[in-house]
Amino acid sequence: MIYLDNGATSYPKPPEVSETIMDVTVNYCANPGRAGHFMAARTAQEIFKTRLSVARLFNIENPGRIVFTKNCTESINMALKGVLLPGDHVITTSMEHNSVLRPLHSLKQNGVKVSTVKCDKAGRLSVNDVKKEITPRTRLIVMTAASNVTGTKMPVEETGRLALRNGILFMVDGAQGAGHMDIDVKKQHIDILAAPGHKGLLGPQGTGFLYVREGIYMAPFLDGGTGSRSKDLEQPVDFPEGYEAGTVNSPGIIALGAAVRVISKLGIDVIEEHERRLTEKLQRGLSEIPGIELYGPEDTYEKTAVVAMNIHGIDCEEVADVFNNRYGIAVRAGFHCSGAAHETIGTEKTGCVRLCPSIYTTEKEIEETIAAAAEIAAGR
Amino acid sequence: MIYLDNGATSYPKPPEVSETIMDVTVNYCANPGRAGHFMAARTAQEIFKTRLSVARLFNIENPGRIVFTKNCTESINMALKGVLLPGDHVITTSMEHNSVLRPLHSLKQNGVKVSTVKCDKAGRLSVNDVKKEITPRTRLIVMTAASNVTGTKMPVEETGRLALRNGILFMVDGAQGAGHMDIDVKKQHIDILAAPGHKGLLGPQGTGFLYVREGIYMAPFLDGGTGSRSKDLEQPVDFPEGYEAGTVNSPGIIALGAAVRVISKLGIDVIEEHERRLTEKLQRGLSEIPGIELYGPEDTYEKTAVVAMNIHGIDCEEVADVFNNRYGIAVRAGFHCSGAAHETIGTEKTGCVRLCPSIYTTEKEIEETIAAAAEIAAGR
Repeated sequence: MIYLDNGATSYPKPPEVSETIMDVTVNYCANPGRAGHFMAARTAQEIFKTRLSVARLFNIENPGRIVFTKNCTESINMALKGVLLPGDHVITTSMEHNSVLRPLHSLKQNGVKVSTVKCDKAGRLSVNDVKKEITPRTRLIVMTAASNVTGTKMPVEETGRLALRNGILFMVDGAQGAGHMDIDVKKQHIDILAAPGHKGLLGPQGTGFLYVREGIYMAPFLDGGTGSRSKDLEQPVDFPEGYEAGTVNSPGIIALGAAVRVISKLGIDVIEEHERRLTEKLQRGLSEIPGIELYGPEDTYEKTAVVAMNIHGIDCEEVADVFNNRYGIAVRAGFHCSGAAHETIGTEKTGCVRLCPSIYTTEKEIEETIAAAAEIAAGR
Repeated sequence: MIYLDNGATSYPKPPEVSETIMDVTVNYCANPGRAGHFMAARTAQEIFKTRLSVARLFNIENPGRIVFTKNCTESINMALKGVLLPGDHVITTSMEHNSVLRPLHSLKQNGVKVSTVKCDKAGRLSVNDVKKEITPRTRLIVMTAASNVTGTKMPVEETGRLALRNGILFMVDGAQGAGHMDIDVKKQHIDILAAPGHKGLLGPQGTGFLYVREGIYMAPFLDGGTGSRSKDLEQPVDFPEGYEAGTVNSPGIIALGAAVRVISKLGIDVIEEHERRLTEKLQRGLSEIPGIELYGPEDTYEKTAVVAMNIHGIDCEEVADVFNNRYGIAVRAGFHCSGAAHETIGTEKTGCVRLCPSIYTTEKEIEETIAAAAEIAAGR
């Protein structure tokens, strides 16, 4: 199978991931932070190692401000619902995933006001348009680092600077950015960063994290056992344990650490350039096929490894089915949990086919994909 | 290491668990319910198989009403916060874990009223005492199947019947019961069941589930992508996908299925009797040692595989340390995220040492543990 559904979850994982999960599960996995015995202590230690590795990759000063979650959606819910108060105004963009737009929508019922800045047809955001939306009640700007539909990179650093100068919190959804492009919370003035473990970070499913800068109060999301202050009925707000109630996914988190170290060793710039070259090749190849329409920026330096396309006259779901059934190529068709993004790029009626290479995708796989697309478009 | 911390997380797991995680991770793990390609379809299929296996074990008619979560704490939060409304009255017990008491405490701020029925010194609940607390506003009775501090089994079926007759919802926290004793949602009239995957069910950490009977409305807990109704900003309330926003822990859930099938094959009654015999042996052995005090029911038919104890004159944390450092026996000391339970049994000042055998614990390990306890108590 040629796997081009890395925007959903990355595959394959580096061997370090399955090896680590196996090692943890078979050899020592206990409950970290609960008991003092060797196995619990070792589990806690290894989880802390992941915290350090994640902190290093994103230039986070205090690893204790990293909360492990089950996925990016939980991270985003935890942050938005824990930080925003009635009366707060939030600015977001029209390229967001439902994991941002749906929590914001539900927060409207709590008196949170939301402005959605419209991006251009390629999914590009103008920071000036964001600036125009700022009011004295604006408390947060939240946006993705890169679109999950078109791969369009957002002006993260510029927006971060704008937020900083206006005393507004800046939150980034790293679902499609983490592991694919440089995310540096200091340089980019990111106050809150949510990310999945199982996409660009190459870790296992069931993992994600949320970074919240020191000084930001976040109401607890899950109430429950924290292994601390057991006699207190009030949920502790100590980082990170107050936000990691219940037993965490130790094998997953520890394996995520292994994956992040693989990434740090390879280098984000090397991964980014490999993926860009493949994306360039794929995009160029597809653009030469009659009947194929591409979405998002033409310039592959403006995007991550996501190619969105349609074949004239064929339903996107059918294209995906043929890719899969006839060629063994895994892609994702439809609306990608991002109705607003499809509206922005003009595919709100058709949806589109999404192809996402990863660091492990080869040139040959891209060539085969282009050849397959040409055959499908030619109706052969 | 002699691992007697199974109340926190079970260890070892059946080999099927690590084998399955490995197989899923290495061979086909994609994002279920998002794309139609072979890998995504296979992942979805295998997750559905887990739903079926869990449904069978707990006699749940509609597997679609099982929501997979990251742990029991998330399951409980999802249910309590999604089902209870301002003005509702809830009855719970003094033996609950903080994963029940803390969410209830935070719901008080939303106008939910809570009555806590005091259990006796052994942690036993009188159904009559529950009955006395019922008011016309009582909407839910929530309680654990068995205490995580003393193992005391709660009168689940009797309470279920009481709730049914009074038109009250009945919710069970299966954290210490699932996999250790018979839980049958039909026979016991359980409307909502929360359980972890990584304790008695022998699955991996990062898994849990919530069952909600058909006909009960639950507000969504996490808002985000569901792979369905992508253009809708309102979180879908379709079971299960509306409650499984974001990418699920596929390897974990599929491995949980493998674990549950191991349990079904062994038989809950066989597991329960094995654990009861070990608990009996452990309890009897410890009770004969001068200076050791035991908590909870003497009759091991009244409890799951949890033994709570203290050694006169030695701090419980120190006892646990000696168990670990000198004998390689893993136990858990302290308050076990259950301050109220410790108050009930009279250990609110001292805490206690908890020893939990599992289906994989041997008689020999129990004998060694008793011998170690005798040496510690004798001050040798």
